[in-house]
Amino acid sequence: MTGRVDSRLAELGLVLPTPAASVANYLPYVISGSLVFVSGQLPLVDGKVTVTGRLGADVSLEDGQKAARQCAINLLAQARAAAGGDLDRVIRLVRLGGFVASTPDFTDQPKIVNGASDLMVEVLGDAGRHSRAAVGVASLPLNAAVEIEAVFELA
Amino acid sequence: MTGRVDSRLAELGLVLPTPAASVANYLPYVISGSLVFVSGQLPLVDGKVTVTGRLGADVSLEDGQKAARQCAINLLAQARAAAGGDLDRVIRLVRLGGFVASTPDFTDQPKIVNGASDLMVEVLGDAGRHSRAAVGVASLPLNAAVEIEAVFELA
Amino acid sequence: MTGRVDSRLAELGLVLPTPAASVANYLPYVISGSLVFVSGQLPLVDGKVTVTGRLGADVSLEDGQKAARQCAINLLAQARAAAGGDLDRVIRLVRLGGFVASTPDFTDQPKIVNGASDLMVEVLGDAGRHSRAAVGVASLPLNAAVEIEAVFELA
Repeated sequence: MTGRVDSRLAELGLVLPTPAASVANYLPYVISGSLVFVSGQLPLVDGKVTVTGRLGADVSLEDGQKAARQCAINLLAQARAAAGGDLDRVIRLVRLGGFVASTPDFTDQPKIVNGASDLMVEVLGDAGRHSRAAVGVASLPLNAAVEIEAVFELA
Repeated sequence: MTGRVDSRLAELGLVLPTPAASVANYLPYVISGSLVFVSGQLPLVDGKVTVTGRLGADVSLEDGQKAARQCAINLLAQARAAAGGDLDRVIRLVRLGGFVASTPDFTDQPKIVNGASDLMVEVLGDAGRHSRAAVGVASLPLNAAVEIEAVFELA
Repeated sequence: MTGRVDSRLAELGLVLPTPAASVANYLPYVISGSLVFVSGQLPLVDGKVTVTGRLGADVSLEDGQKAARQCAINLLAQARAAAGGDLDRVIRLVRLGGFVASTPDFTDQPKIVNGASDLMVEVLGDAGRHSRAAVGVASLPLNAAVEIEAVFELA
């Protein structure tokens, strides 16, 4: 039997990747009570950052949004692992923390992070609506254009 | 009957605004268990950012503090909505995350975020004392000088 | 009788400082349910920032890692206070939020924050493995090179 969210992923033509393992003394996620804290995810596909650089300099609005969407896909892959493989157990995306590599004069961070917010609602429905912060930072790991962390609530 | 915190707001001459609705696929706040996660608030008044620019360049210390204070007022408006209109249900401000648009040589972020911390204690008393982080970021949405997010605990 | 974590600290030759008091209307930590939210800690020793400046400009990778390690030591001092002096009550480090003062072209934030992650696992063992975010910011309070905040879970 396929879960509700898995069916939705299939409808959207989305395949969640094998969640990336951490390469240091931290973990991709930690469960505390009903909350899952997921580490900041980069727009990685097959271990490579797909969108590098800064908004306002060498990254277009559209590419920034794609980067945020990929971060969201990677967050969902971690959430699925945290939920023992069953995304239907995710009853709420509680919070997204969106960091956008930005020049000092780039101020459209919300449009960028919408790439992640929209994907979450596409996949999780109303359970994907979340609180969030979106800020412009000086630089990000591996020169990624976007990094997003999340807190999910499990049933 | 007027609540304790509402009385305090009146004493201070503060009127909380109608909380801003979100304009995208995210929410102004999410409640999970006894915690309320409030989205990053800008120094908006009537839908307009009141203090724009960066500390260290075109924003004075005093204006930065006013911006942080306005973020705090907007956080309280969201917290009141989350508490069903009754701020007396807020038993604790757990955390503030303060982001200050800064030049690389501006290092007084704590003084800026104090504008929010002080307002919280003025309004909520000891329940307003919180943990916090204060950092200097490259840029913020709508060119706001300050963005602050919060976690509150409800009774 | 000495606790397990205290013994480990002694083995490592680490002495946790007296936790710094906050100097404004915020607190070094807040406990909510089983979670302890610890305010962003700077690489302070005896009240002075030990590593100032930005990665990519005037701070070496090694000094950045030392700064992160010192932030972690200061986080543990706060966690011990929150746990009534008994670090054995810390059953999990849930999350680290790592902010690294960075030039736009510095992208090795993970290596810097590893200085904190490694210390946490050295001291707390598996309970020290955590989720985390690591980002590069424009500037930090007191010109510190690193600021790290944390969420711990208490038994």
